Amino acid sequence: MNETIETTLDMITTLLREKRIGELHRLFHDIPAADIAELLTEFEGGELLLLFRILPKEAAADVFVLMDPDQMEELLGAFSDREITALIEDMYLDDAVDIIEEMPANVAQRILSRASSDTRREINALLKYPQDSAGSILTTEYVRLYPDTTVAEAFDIIRKTGIDKETVYTCYVTDRQRRLIGVVSARTLMLSDSKALTADIMEKNVISVKTLDDKEFVANQLQKYDFLALPVVDSEDRMIGIVTVDDAIDVIVDEYSEDIEIMAAITPTDKPYLKQSVFSIYKNRIPWLLLLMISATFTGMIISSFEAALAAQVALTAFIPMLMDTGGNSGSQASVTVIRGISLDEISFSDTFFVMWKELRVSALCGVSLAAATFIKIQLVDNLLMHNGVSIAVSAVVCLTLLFTVVCAKLIGCTLPLLAKKIGFDPAVMASPFITTIVDAISLLLYFFFAKAMLGL
Amino acid sequence: MNETIETTLDMITTLLREKRIGELHRLFHDIPAADIAELLTEFEGGELLLLFRILPKEAAADVFVLMDPDQMEELLGAFSDREITALIEDMYLDDAVDIIEEMPANVAQRILSRASSDTRREINALLKYPQDSAGSILTTEYVRLYPDTTVAEAFDIIRKTGIDKETVYTCYVTDRQRRLIGVVSARTLMLSDSKALTADIMEKNVISVKTLDDKEFVANQLQKYDFLALPVVDSEDRMIGIVTVDDAIDVIVDEYSEDIEIMAAITPTDKPYLKQSVFSIYKNRIPWLLLLMISATFTGMIISSFEAALAAQVALTAFIPMLMDTGGNSGSQASVTVIRGISLDEISFSDTFFVMWKELRVSALCGVSLAAATFIKIQLVDNLLMHNGVSIAVSAVVCLTLLFTVVCAKLIGCTLPLLAKKIGFDPAVMASPFITTIVDAISLLLYFFFAKAMLGL
Repeated sequence: MNETIETTLDMITTLLREKRIGELHRLFHDIPAADIAELLTEFEGGELLLLFRILPKEAAADVFVLMDPDQMEELLGAFSDREITALIEDMYLDDAVDIIEEMPANVAQRILSRASSDTRREINALLKYPQDSAGSILTTEYVRLYPDTTVAEAFDIIRKTGIDKETVYTCYVTDRQRRLIGVVSARTLMLSDSKALTADIMEKNVISVKTLDDKEFVANQLQKYDFLALPVVDSEDRMIGIVTVDDAIDVIVDEYSEDIEIMAAITPTDKPYLKQSVFSIYKNRIPWLLLLMISATFTGMIISSFEAALAAQVALTAFIPMLMDTGGNSGSQASVTVIRGISLDEISFSDTFFVMWKELRVSALCGVSLAAATFIKIQLVDNLLMHNGVSIAVSAVVCLTLLFTVVCAKLIGCTLPLLAKKIGFDPAVMASPFITTIVDAISLLLYFFFAKAMLGL
Repeated sequence: MNETIETTLDMITTLLREKRIGELHRLFHDIPAADIAELLTEFEGGELLLLFRILPKEAAADVFVLMDPDQMEELLGAFSDREITALIEDMYLDDAVDIIEEMPANVAQRILSRASSDTRREINALLKYPQDSAGSILTTEYVRLYPDTTVAEAFDIIRKTGIDKETVYTCYVTDRQRRLIGVVSARTLMLSDSKALTADIMEKNVISVKTLDDKEFVANQLQKYDFLALPVVDSEDRMIGIVTVDDAIDVIVDEYSEDIEIMAAITPTDKPYLKQSVFSIYKNRIPWLLLLMISATFTGMIISSFEAALAAQVALTAFIPMLMDTGGNSGSQASVTVIRGISLDEISFSDTFFVMWKELRVSALCGVSLAAATFIKIQLVDNLLMHNGVSIAVSAVVCLTLLFTVVCAKLIGCTLPLLAKKIGFDPAVMASPFITTIVDAISLLLYFFFAKAMLGL
């Protein structure tokens, strides 16, 4: 919360305490909806309801869609049926659908029953699309033109219907069967002669997505082509709606947060950290910690089975953390690079061998450098400085293990995300924690293999 | 590369081989600039130059700004002075600035010397803004109105100058001293009476950013308020330019990639993975691996200094990987959650104690659960199933260490990113690899402390 907002918050609190409702109403007139929603997070109960009812009529729906789900539910419980109808009819359809999906069934039912029959029909149609699909984020409120519409007529259509459309800056041209045949931007309309026909000025190479396309793909397309909106069509190329750039940004930011949480072995959530309860944070973290802890016990079992070797050469134990950590870090560098490449659509499964060949060379270079550094470090620090008396043979075992661990770690790190993607899992699961657990076991197996072979244990 | 693009690539290759230049030219007419840029990555040398010269005149600049820096440099080297002038004058200023910043000095000099004196002056002004500032991504090509402009006059201005502006959908209203006093959207203009004055229909509460604001902050503001462009003003509120939504998306995606790479201990890069050379990947990874390896040797030193204790109770060694991994995972869960919160502007330094208190409770819950699970697992698996004979005292040492490690790991994990931010470092550096290295040492110190105290070693 920045300073301006905090000052405004103080003002609102004072005005509210002194019941200066008229001033509050005027104050809200000058605050953008996103800031009002942020301010309202500080209130609850009767105060929240009062403040919401004071909002300028045209701002109420905009503010509502930006509020916390908890506050939405609280308000909806207190609203009269007439208030709910007014609110839902003022919202863009895609926002209404999002809210209905987030509310408990009885609240969602009440909202739907208060919407006009037209709105209800359209909301119900949108609710049918699977989560994460283009359909789930589209809105049906766009400007539609026919090829024989003139520029002057197009402006009339925009003037008449524009107020209810989510964007008027890209108009979509369809035939009478609603098949999408072109797009024309408001910019082109403004720069064209008023008697020109839409068919003659429209862009005919329309880039569109299907209702069932992944919403991340849709957001990537919007970014790639620098569009303000992207049309969504059904399997027969009939125009269903549009996805606007603001929703695409939200998808990108959400996917980013989700990726990062999954990579850190946390069940992803939409809620800001400061708003989550201790128990819900616990619930999102503990299953992964348990799972990874159980896998890590296999590593312990490997150590147990080589107890005799370790007892004979106690010096070996001191290098275990370094080998495990370096292996884990090398593996997660490769896996995270590939996960990022997959989510930016730069790498696909068909690149697997190319990626492996590249990682093989990178890991050889890294492995040799690290092994050389370790060898020098052992001789200088462990032997000369600390007089630990690490033999050349033990140094060789450590360095060879390091080299092979780095190579294995990077190959596994780059392959697993691609495999995960191929079989339909989220590649982000294959980030540091998972890779680390696997690489730990491998590095120890390599370590004891070389120790047995070269030290004759 | 998707199927449609691959089919088109085959067509281009065939047409090029058979020297059917006219058909190539017509083909390019129907392909969006972003796709042409992707297609051109497959060509080089004379072929690349020929294909670029065939492009429809109006598409050339759009395609060029989307190309690989390597290919840009190659083309610029082959272009005549006249071609460079045409190209640079057709580009939006912010794109021209980006390209000049990426090219080697001699190439940048040549571009600047070929630009018209107006363009050169504006480019030079933009080049002065620090990297990562709003100034570095703004463009000066926006539509400016005065308060006494009528709607009809505004449309005339858009019609006359719109072709050269990056957006015409938000117009900025300034006084004669160029101080920003309002914004008016093209939508409002279209829905207003043609005789209305700009002053009467403009939005007076303008949200703007300063030229030196961080570009990530600018992108966040654009997302928060769902704007298509955000005005950038200097310290005296004079309008300098705008940042458009497409550039904001690019900033968000770039920051996302950068965060993820830093979190995985990789020096961030703009280049797609498949285009990077083996050596440059190596260069971006090896310094971090070396640094972390050196830190990990401290962990080794801790083990060395407790060699006697380990030799007396060899069973202790088997639990080291599990303790280290679980500590690392717990710590990175907390650090990544906080890093994400910081980058989404949800958490700031003033929340430190609140965050620590939350993590303390979460970590206590996690620690107790994990310790209980481990205690049961040791009794059932290690003792009943594998007959390893782990004593109750050793089990207690392991479980206590686990509990305290998880608590320390989460407290360190949530604090370090906030401290890093406070002293001006990138919080993302404090992700898994760093936390893991620190937590490893702490978990071992705790382990040996409890072992000494409870086993009397």
